[in-house]
Amino acid sequence: MKLYDGGKAPNPRRVQIFLKEKGIEIEREQLDLNAREQKSEAFSELNPMQTVPVLELDDGQIIAESVAICRYFEEVQPEPALMGRTPVGKAMVEMWQRRAELNLMMPVAFAFRHLHPGAKTIEPLQIGEWGDLNKERAGRTMRIFDEKLADSEFIAGDDFTIADITAFVACQFMKVAKIERPEELVHLNRWFAAVSERPSTAFD
Amino acid sequence: MKLYDGGKAPNPRRVQIFLKEKGIEIEREQLDLNAREQKSEAFSELNPMQTVPVLELDDGQIIAESVAICRYFEEVQPEPALMGRTPVGKAMVEMWQRRAELNLMMPVAFAFRHLHPGAKTIEPLQIGEWGDLNKERAGRTMRIFDEKLADSEFIAGDDFTIADITAFVACQFMKVAKIERPEELVHLNRWFAAVSERPSTAFD
Repeated sequence: MKLYDGGKAPNPRRVQIFLKEKGIEIEREQLDLNAREQKSEAFSELNPMQTVPVLELDDGQIIAESVAICRYFEEVQPEPALMGRTPVGKAMVEMWQRRAELNLMMPVAFAFRHLHPGAKTIEPLQIGEWGDLNKERAGRTMRIFDEKLADSEFIAGDDFTIADITAFVACQFMKVAKIERPEELVHLNRWFAAVSERPSTAFD
Repeated sequence: MKLYDGGKAPNPRRVQIFLKEKGIEIEREQLDLNAREQKSEAFSELNPMQTVPVLELDDGQIIAESVAICRYFEEVQPEPALMGRTPVGKAMVEMWQRRAELNLMMPVAFAFRHLHPGAKTIEPLQIGEWGDLNKERAGRTMRIFDEKLADSEFIAGDDFTIADITAFVACQFMKVAKIERPEELVHLNRWFAAVSERPSTAFD
């Protein structure tokens, strides 16, 4: 089994943290994303979407998409559970994971790609208006997450889950995207500080 | 249990088709999306993301996000399996579901919202350039799906799954978004015709 990985980029980070929480170590090959290695013809044959990470199983089957890779490991090694335990619990984790991804991580990524001068190499047609719209949207989501975190230790409830991983990576990525975490969101900031202290989230 | 539903809009359709495939009937309340009922204060308390569908459980717990609602029903009624059976199978379905959603459905939605004159009420700041970029992206994804469907009956393999539901709803939504399914994509078109004939995908 081998993980085609991508250093400190947000999606690779999600799987890295997930695996550390599970205590799973596997062989890795680091792609050079600055050199656009994930866009190469050879890699496109593994994943036509040209994204990392990608998991290659021993029989040659390929699993792309961070959350799908996490799902595989959750199924083969259920403990510690990072995607919920009961039907309702699994649905809640999926709901918050999706909210973290679609309403926080993606807006932050769009803001970065369309506003940051350094992102021109990956997004040749930068649309500033689109970046601004997404910056606002990230702000709205942070407030919703702050309200949720007033009532629970972690984003989907009492347990640390993949929803926390996605939201945490999105919040870290905000620094690069030049989006601030407002000081008044005390619950979000309490949660961010706590997740920052988990060994799994340290940069290698 | 009650489903807050949204007629023929794409995300409500995904859950409607999923439930029909499972043979599950539940109480529904239709929201008037044209009147923006999902943006009301009362509904925002159920789902701060202001989207439908939303599932209210008998104990009052709320599950939002189409795929999270599907996950709940898959867990409480596993047959017919629409989200995979084995660890690898579940990961494959999740991978293709995500590709269908992130690389087809979302680009189609962006193209609609940013290019269609009728979408101005839901997207006051229409950014034509962003719409065009997404139209192209939907085209690229259709070609990748066509290649996959040259080798398998359904998108994630031999079984009809949630990945087919998302991709099919996205392809239907393309009509509204004025994106054509190229004639030369014979495998995609074969699959679309086959899924169209399933009773679950008929409009009520």
